Amino acid sequence: MRGRASYVRGGNLIELILVQLFVLVLLARVAAFLCEAIKFPALIGEILVGIVIGNTVLFDVLHLGTDIEVFSIFAELGVIFLLFAIGLETPFSELKKVGGTAALVAVLGVIFPFAFGYILIVSFGHPEVEALFIGAAMVATSVGITARVIKDLGKTHTIESRVIIGAAVIDDILGMVVLAVVSGVAGGGALDLVDIVIVAALAVLFVVAVVYVGTGLLPRARDRAKGTKASKRIARLHSGTSSLALALIVCFGLSALASYVGLAAIIGAFLAGMVFAEFRDIMPVAERFEPINEFLVPFFFLFIGISVDLASFLDVAVLALVVTGLAIATKFVGCGLGAYKLGPKSAAVIGVGMSPRGEVGLIVASVGLSIGSISAGMFSVVVAMSLLTTLVAPPLLTYTFKKTGRGGVR
Amino acid sequence: MRGRASYVRGGNLIELILVQLFVLVLLARVAAFLCEAIKFPALIGEILVGIVIGNTVLFDVLHLGTDIEVFSIFAELGVIFLLFAIGLETPFSELKKVGGTAALVAVLGVIFPFAFGYILIVSFGHPEVEALFIGAAMVATSVGITARVIKDLGKTHTIESRVIIGAAVIDDILGMVVLAVVSGVAGGGALDLVDIVIVAALAVLFVVAVVYVGTGLLPRARDRAKGTKASKRIARLHSGTSSLALALIVCFGLSALASYVGLAAIIGAFLAGMVFAEFRDIMPVAERFEPINEFLVPFFFLFIGISVDLASFLDVAVLALVVTGLAIATKFVGCGLGAYKLGPKSAAVIGVGMSPRGEVGLIVASVGLSIGSISAGMFSVVVAMSLLTTLVAPPLLTYTFKKTGRGGVR
Repeated sequence: MRGRASYVRGGNLIELILVQLFVLVLLARVAAFLCEAIKFPALIGEILVGIVIGNTVLFDVLHLGTDIEVFSIFAELGVIFLLFAIGLETPFSELKKVGGTAALVAVLGVIFPFAFGYILIVSFGHPEVEALFIGAAMVATSVGITARVIKDLGKTHTIESRVIIGAAVIDDILGMVVLAVVSGVAGGGALDLVDIVIVAALAVLFVVAVVYVGTGLLPRARDRAKGTKASKRIARLHSGTSSLALALIVCFGLSALASYVGLAAIIGAFLAGMVFAEFRDIMPVAERFEPINEFLVPFFFLFIGISVDLASFLDVAVLALVVTGLAIATKFVGCGLGAYKLGPKSAAVIGVGMSPRGEVGLIVASVGLSIGSISAGMFSVVVAMSLLTTLVAPPLLTYTFKKTGRGGVR
Repeated sequence: MRGRASYVRGGNLIELILVQLFVLVLLARVAAFLCEAIKFPALIGEILVGIVIGNTVLFDVLHLGTDIEVFSIFAELGVIFLLFAIGLETPFSELKKVGGTAALVAVLGVIFPFAFGYILIVSFGHPEVEALFIGAAMVATSVGITARVIKDLGKTHTIESRVIIGAAVIDDILGMVVLAVVSGVAGGGALDLVDIVIVAALAVLFVVAVVYVGTGLLPRARDRAKGTKASKRIARLHSGTSSLALALIVCFGLSALASYVGLAAIIGAFLAGMVFAEFRDIMPVAERFEPINEFLVPFFFLFIGISVDLASFLDVAVLALVVTGLAIATKFVGCGLGAYKLGPKSAAVIGVGMSPRGEVGLIVASVGLSIGSISAGMFSVVVAMSLLTTLVAPPLLTYTFKKTGRGGVR
């Protein structure tokens, strides 16, 4: 029995993990509750608790160093399920209506941060390659934060929400292309255009294929089969508990595939949710996903906080603040311009909603760090930028959403 | 930012974990579905899939060795939430009614396997100390398996279910005492009676305290407060999502405490569920726990299967089969005698339901292995016993439950 060691270790490990879970869930819930009491988004409380845990003696008292990987998995699954839930409330037909706007938002939201980020860093006297990497790290929106705020505010069905989500999908593809280009330039060799085209084409193909099969072919097949014997048999199969299992399988499968073609796993999860949105008549899974999300999603925000090292921020504080300001301003202007035809208030929501940068920017920066193109100090700047944009966005988003002064447009 | 490395590793790790989750959930669901189609308990399918994964090239193809710990945590959380859910359907008032019977079932169910296990091993010519350990490893019932079968059959409210659960709590305390005694004897020193009494007293105190506060003091306070302003304010606090969070916090806290006082963590989870059963009027959490369980519980049964090493069974096949047969027979007779006043059919259900041995027996055996009191071959025998009792119990339990020919007694 292979399990002997793991069973016995499991005995000790699970005791520790239970204590950690107890403390983490308790603190996160109390902080979320206090935030809600003063009308702040709950995730701010969760991130702040994470920062406190990560930067005080609590981190060692809880022995979080020994199994941080387990909680990083909880965090990743949390954000994957969160995007799946957002997908569930975003039928493709609705997304299609805002496709043009979303594309414009995404493109301008990539060009502005990249160009101005590059110019800023060069003007500070840094090498061009470093400036290219910082520009690239400022490109990709991390939609997890915005998604949570939208969900907590009950605004999933608004046009702003759909433009943001649609733009985030396109943005992720563009971010990948930018990273490929910048790495190519930094590598010193000629840009391998063929490589870049293949990488981008694979990502686009994945998204188009999922959308075509999941929201076109399958629903049509379902409609044709309606009332037939086979359809009734399938409906019986899906009765009871198995639709949740099917949703999990599709969500894991498409998330893994998205990650495999170079997109963020959460993009795959979002697409999976969108596919299930087409089948909510026979497989209503949204309600059954909620408790799973309530358990796992807070770990994503706790983990963001735990990952913050306050001490290292102080060394690069000035440049970090300048870059963060620029990161917010360029997304706000770029995405806002792209969405301007929806009116200034909606454009403001979209500009703010696209501003959080997260793990994608960090991955870009760590690629730069690993090939020696950016310095350790500059890496801390990127970390600070991705954290500060994440912290600033939720209250701004809540504020701008309230200014639009209406509910969903369903 | 401490997270750099973990973010980047997280990127690769999560891709692998998503693929693993996709394959595991898919295979488990298909196997469970096939089992249900032929009226077998789903968990049999899940265990069999685990055995196939653990003993074929699939284990390496899926790279399960690299992060088996993550899945062991999923498995442990699954069985903890399962027992919490069972607790939710077991109000203490109902459990109290069967207290005497449960105690008798537990005591006879400990004496019979221990005595006959000891006699068997000695009569095979093995040392007395080894015989003591094997006897001790045959004592503790692993109630997770039985709990799942009971839940799947919809028999949680039957008297048999309550006797089994009550006896399992007492059984766990007794099993701990037996382990302490046997380890003391094996240690060569005089038995430290004071130690044993302290260990046992702490465990009893924990159970009694939780039951007294959770099902006595708190519900009475709630009843007294009914209709007052404070109670309405508390009710508002618990509205919406926060009751699930509170349930998670209490479940993790009591599971950790149970593990800390030497009991199985699942006993704490069961008690936590029992406490929440008293508050289902203001905090109905049962339905919200279901999807979480549907996600996590199958991992417990998959993991049992994955832990099986078929090859090592062949070496000790004969003795393993004899010990397994004895393990089932002694629990069946001992527990059946204890429950005989409920009638032969109920006694049969309880005798079968108490027969699965799981991680507790394995822990006892690994203590024996680590201090050199039992041989590696004998360890494999215990592993085989705990696996085979686990595999045999579900179909037998389904069969005997059907013979009682009635539904719940609620």
